[in-house]
Amino acid sequence: MKTTNHSADCLIIGAGPAGLGAALYAARDRFKTIVLEKFYPGGQILTTDRIENYPGFLNIPGPDLILKMVEQVQSFGADIKTNQEVLSLQRRADGLIEARTEQDVYTAKVVILAPGSSYRKLGVPGEEEFRQAGAGVSYCGTCDAPFFKDKVVVAVGGGNTAVEDTLHLAKYAKKVYMVHRRSEFRATKVLVEELMQKVNQKDSNITLRLDTVVTEILGSGRVERVLLKNVRTGQVEELPCDGVFIFVGMVPNTGFLKGFVDLTEAGFIRCEPAYLRTRVPGVFAAGDCRIGAAMQLVTAVADGVNAAMWMKHYLRDPAWWTQPLAEAL
Amino acid sequence: MKTTNHSADCLIIGAGPAGLGAALYAARDRFKTIVLEKFYPGGQILTTDRIENYPGFLNIPGPDLILKMVEQVQSFGADIKTNQEVLSLQRRADGLIEARTEQDVYTAKVVILAPGSSYRKLGVPGEEEFRQAGAGVSYCGTCDAPFFKDKVVVAVGGGNTAVEDTLHLAKYAKKVYMVHRRSEFRATKVLVEELMQKVNQKDSNITLRLDTVVTEILGSGRVERVLLKNVRTGQVEELPCDGVFIFVGMVPNTGFLKGFVDLTEAGFIRCEPAYLRTRVPGVFAAGDCRIGAAMQLVTAVADGVNAAMWMKHYLRDPAWWTQPLAEAL
Repeated sequence: MKTTNHSADCLIIGAGPAGLGAALYAARDRFKTIVLEKFYPGGQILTTDRIENYPGFLNIPGPDLILKMVEQVQSFGADIKTNQEVLSLQRRADGLIEARTEQDVYTAKVVILAPGSSYRKLGVPGEEEFRQAGAGVSYCGTCDAPFFKDKVVVAVGGGNTAVEDTLHLAKYAKKVYMVHRRSEFRATKVLVEELMQKVNQKDSNITLRLDTVVTEILGSGRVERVLLKNVRTGQVEELPCDGVFIFVGMVPNTGFLKGFVDLTEAGFIRCEPAYLRTRVPGVFAAGDCRIGAAMQLVTAVADGVNAAMWMKHYLRDPAWWTQPLAEAL
Repeated sequence: MKTTNHSADCLIIGAGPAGLGAALYAARDRFKTIVLEKFYPGGQILTTDRIENYPGFLNIPGPDLILKMVEQVQSFGADIKTNQEVLSLQRRADGLIEARTEQDVYTAKVVILAPGSSYRKLGVPGEEEFRQAGAGVSYCGTCDAPFFKDKVVVAVGGGNTAVEDTLHLAKYAKKVYMVHRRSEFRATKVLVEELMQKVNQKDSNITLRLDTVVTEILGSGRVERVLLKNVRTGQVEELPCDGVFIFVGMVPNTGFLKGFVDLTEAGFIRCEPAYLRTRVPGVFAAGDCRIGAAMQLVTAVADGVNAAMWMKHYLRDPAWWTQPLAEAL
């Protein structure tokens, strides 16, 4: 295996919304721009079937929006490399940043970190076992709901995604049990109202199990039932089902950055929200991976754009990196 | 004339990209949302005929994009009131913010200031005439440079943006004449050095016209030439060109905010870029009106969205306003 060396003005790690926003601006400004993507462009948006809060689109499927963004980014000459997982990063003595994948070495004057975040696991017995192709555990209602047409499923969580995806599941499944460990939902009002309206309909196919957690996922070859436990009463219930959807949050994909940039305990990249500068000169953080992110599609895109705009200050004068936030803003 | 009183959870001042971004999120979260717009929704975007750097749209006329955003915002119930110029603002003893227009009084728990900014004009004949739909006068190099590939353009100004955008234009245009009324540039040294290096290159496509002003922009249907005048010698020159880029500064539309929030000398609203909080509890700043704005369409939209997201923290607990930026991020 021969190592190939690549060099760029701007190296972007991650081809989700933040990475694509950064790539659009960097490439359009005629910087040599390479985007390294572990899997396929799109990040979380790729698994979102209905987006109605990206300003400009009343309603668009995630994969459609990503295709448009990718086409736009490529039209300005950015090079998106898929299946390229970055294993390590370092800033060299000459000021260039070096990123290594399994086979290749990339060097760049500026790196924009946009690795996004991933699904949080429940961590109960059976979760890993049934995670495989169609065995019945899923983290993405949009992707997998159609496989559960007329089936009975359990949905776990209480935030925006949990409520949204439960509503989505209910369009396919015969029955959805929504399991939430608290008595109230964290999701936005409008979503909770929509959920409760559906729950309270006559012959509703959504049933709530509040103050309840999943303690185990059971089955033979595939999911057949879950064990539930009411955290107030201690009561245990065995619930037959065909699938379990886990919607309990996101974890930033920053494991590979440990020791390179500063991370919070939860793994988010520490940076100045004004300039998106990390502690390493030339390395910006953009999107859901950083502290203070609003975790919305358009705010992630704008983060990438901002990083690509501030990048020009650094390229012109590296001393800018340590200049204090101030009037200069 | 009878004064009408209106109340809202969230009052947004300005229906440009930032105000519409804020309105979408506030209304979708089921907050009673009113947007006050001095003229007509859209702000600067309304006069931009071709946008190709808003991620998701390969190419869209500004007014089309604004129509989509307005429809989307209204579909969630936000009330956009046009021809409503805010004359004064105050925070009352009861914590509500009060805004007065000529006839009406609006009170709200939260105000998001999104009045935008305007390009400073040269004020010469032809400038207004050719401003419309691709006729050849532009105020934004980042936005419009790619439309002048292999063309001859004139760039006017001597500050940071003028130098930056001239360098940017030179990547696309066949020839850039940079016209500056003084013999020295106001821009930072490092930028001027970069410019002079380019100018002095063999076969450079940038030519300076110092001590020179544009006195008229001429053409038939679109820009064909400009009249220049050397302010020292009085000599007049007629220069054929395809476009004129005017980089003589931005003016934030914040005159009505003097004494209410803190403004910089140039008129930009002082706020924390992380949370967009101004010095007045409950009053956020979003978009081109604030310090540190990247002055791009998608970053303005995201500012509005961020303000509407942070707003929920304040509504939940007013003490949040004075909490320091920190880990809480």
